[in-house]
Amino acid sequence: MHDLTRELSLKNDSKIVMLVADGLGGLPLEPGGLTELETARTPNLDALTKRGVLGGSIPVKPGITPGSGPGHLGLFGYDPLTYKIGRGALEATGIGFELGANDVACRGNYCTLDAEGRISDRRAGRISSEQSAPLAKVLAQVKIAGVEVFVEPVKEHRFVVVFRAAGLGGDVHDTDPQKTGVPPLDPRPVDPADAAGAKTSAIAREFVTQARRLLADQQKANGLTLRGFSARPKLPGYEEVYGLRAAAIAVYPMYKGLARLVGMDLLGKAQTLAEQIDVLEQRWSDYDFFFIHFKYTDSTGEDGNFQAKVSRIEELDAIVPRITELKPTVLIVTGDHSTPSLLKSHSWHPVPTLLVSACCRADECQTFGEREAVRGGLGQFEAKYLMPLALANAGRLGKFGA
Amino acid sequence: MHDLTRELSLKNDSKIVMLVADGLGGLPLEPGGLTELETARTPNLDALTKRGVLGGSIPVKPGITPGSGPGHLGLFGYDPLTYKIGRGALEATGIGFELGANDVACRGNYCTLDAEGRISDRRAGRISSEQSAPLAKVLAQVKIAGVEVFVEPVKEHRFVVVFRAAGLGGDVHDTDPQKTGVPPLDPRPVDPADAAGAKTSAIAREFVTQARRLLADQQKANGLTLRGFSARPKLPGYEEVYGLRAAAIAVYPMYKGLARLVGMDLLGKAQTLAEQIDVLEQRWSDYDFFFIHFKYTDSTGEDGNFQAKVSRIEELDAIVPRITELKPTVLIVTGDHSTPSLLKSHSWHPVPTLLVSACCRADECQTFGEREAVRGGLGQFEAKYLMPLALANAGRLGKFGA
Repeated sequence: MHDLTRELSLKNDSKIVMLVADGLGGLPLEPGGLTELETARTPNLDALTKRGVLGGSIPVKPGITPGSGPGHLGLFGYDPLTYKIGRGALEATGIGFELGANDVACRGNYCTLDAEGRISDRRAGRISSEQSAPLAKVLAQVKIAGVEVFVEPVKEHRFVVVFRAAGLGGDVHDTDPQKTGVPPLDPRPVDPADAAGAKTSAIAREFVTQARRLLADQQKANGLTLRGFSARPKLPGYEEVYGLRAAAIAVYPMYKGLARLVGMDLLGKAQTLAEQIDVLEQRWSDYDFFFIHFKYTDSTGEDGNFQAKVSRIEELDAIVPRITELKPTVLIVTGDHSTPSLLKSHSWHPVPTLLVSACCRADECQTFGEREAVRGGLGQFEAKYLMPLALANAGRLGKFGA
Repeated sequence: MHDLTRELSLKNDSKIVMLVADGLGGLPLEPGGLTELETARTPNLDALTKRGVLGGSIPVKPGITPGSGPGHLGLFGYDPLTYKIGRGALEATGIGFELGANDVACRGNYCTLDAEGRISDRRAGRISSEQSAPLAKVLAQVKIAGVEVFVEPVKEHRFVVVFRAAGLGGDVHDTDPQKTGVPPLDPRPVDPADAAGAKTSAIAREFVTQARRLLADQQKANGLTLRGFSARPKLPGYEEVYGLRAAAIAVYPMYKGLARLVGMDLLGKAQTLAEQIDVLEQRWSDYDFFFIHFKYTDSTGEDGNFQAKVSRIEELDAIVPRITELKPTVLIVTGDHSTPSLLKSHSWHPVPTLLVSACCRADECQTFGEREAVRGGLGQFEAKYLMPLALANAGRLGKFGA
């Protein structure tokens, strides 16, 4: 699709807003009941639905439940089965570490080693974040010639390591043996003939050696395993594939990071939805495309808190008039996946998706909800087609063929 | 998709039942009329529809009418454009011949040769099955060193030959010249450099030579042509791609054979639908997935007998409570293609497909039928996505990406 969008790209003064309510789609708690979105009072979204076109976005493929990475890549128009983000790169992205072209990231776990160096606890007794955070500073003392080493704490026994040097590669096996009673595995390249993987392996080996020394006094976290080695994924940017100056207005590091990976500028330091819209208003003239991320529809779904998710959807609805007052050429309201409170997890169900523009060909849908979306004019479509639809509705795609 | 299902596969105690009514979809006999399925009284399927999610399964691609092979491969989650079953292999499968890894099967036709060895009738006067069946025994007398030869009668002038030996290949040209007045073609490999195809060709040549001698006394069937040379298709099994212990409960050899090709166990010797459900009940605890095949919705459609197809659908409906009483985690009711009585043949029309589970996101459909399926929550989807949907609804697929 990017070959097409590149070739057909047109410039104009249109503005596209993509409002992503994370985990938006849901399920009824009981057969015959209403979903969270169907339960919520959403007068503003319903009014938009009447003049827009509705549909169901399939994040990856039918039946496939995505994580945040593939969920957002799909919405951004990048086939999530083609463009994969390694676990290390995604973890680094998730804590706001901006990966450079010479970086390889991996996820670390502290573990407990016995006197013979065998793993007795793969998660170091799940030590608390308070206990583990200072250890990242200890590990940051590792010195390897010609390599910059970054160690960042994540939650509990988890951390992220980034090695920065020319010629590194991400194809390195995990060192976690996935069982206790054996020592951590030695870092080694997936393909022994791969010089880049071999270089990363050698650096990782040296890192582990020094780290063991630095952690020797720790009672629980006296060892570590590394996994998900990955370079920064190579994603063509929004400017290049869509001709869009794009900006992201997000609160959480993960979504800021994903937006950076596709070349969006990160705007503002908003902590609330109202502040996010403040930023949108302030920077309205500077960009063609705005990605606004709202987290709490997902987190309440993950908590299994149906009513809290309903409230968060109503909170989102209340802010919509401030967006429509800016008169975007195209306004999209969608989610990166469903997170039904019933399942307390992400799911595969299609996500209600609304597109409003002056030429969107409105359908007969009256309210913004899962069942109404089934009869919407967008039908059910893979998320990766949403960006071409946005561009078309913005008059930014020319004719294919004569 | 199998890379995904393999990677994301989770084990649990769920049970999936796929009830396939062959040729289920239909057409009205007159404009504005009802289809067979819409005409049939189906209170049990309608009740399931109210708590399930409905849609239209496209067997291969829009407009493409499948045979039984591709139709079932799609339902089983194998892209029918990627996984092809050669005609010989399908014919062998259809008569219940279980192909091994060293087998190459082909379809034979008896033909009539004139004194100069030229074909005067490509179908040997369409001799009756009674006349042709003993000829298979005659041909089974062919002896080729190092090769096991099997000859099985099919209908009228048709038979199946299977050559079993190491190093055989299926890439061999048909010997039927597709016209009269010329001799049958010599068997030869598609690629002369292909040793496996050359070996099969040499064996087939010897088979034809000896067969001509054995048939010399026959008035009509004194010659033969061979076509559709094919090895056993390489299909990864259900256990490997889905992590499912799968079983088939079918009456007809073709469907048993197709199920065997994807690694299902064949259960019981049921001759009726009631006996098939007996087997389902008896073996319920032994498998994760059950494929139940019901033939008569197809055969009545092929006969152009609208009313008989209606009755068969009602027969199917009546058995449904025995399945639901087993409380499958996921119950799917579908067909491998449509077989409208109006057309007396398979067709390309989407097949009404019902999926019921506790997390299926029920739609507003009230009755199980073609027009109702158009407004169903599954939308229209390629049949190959049904298995991922089944696995997701059974909680057997983990998250893709973090």
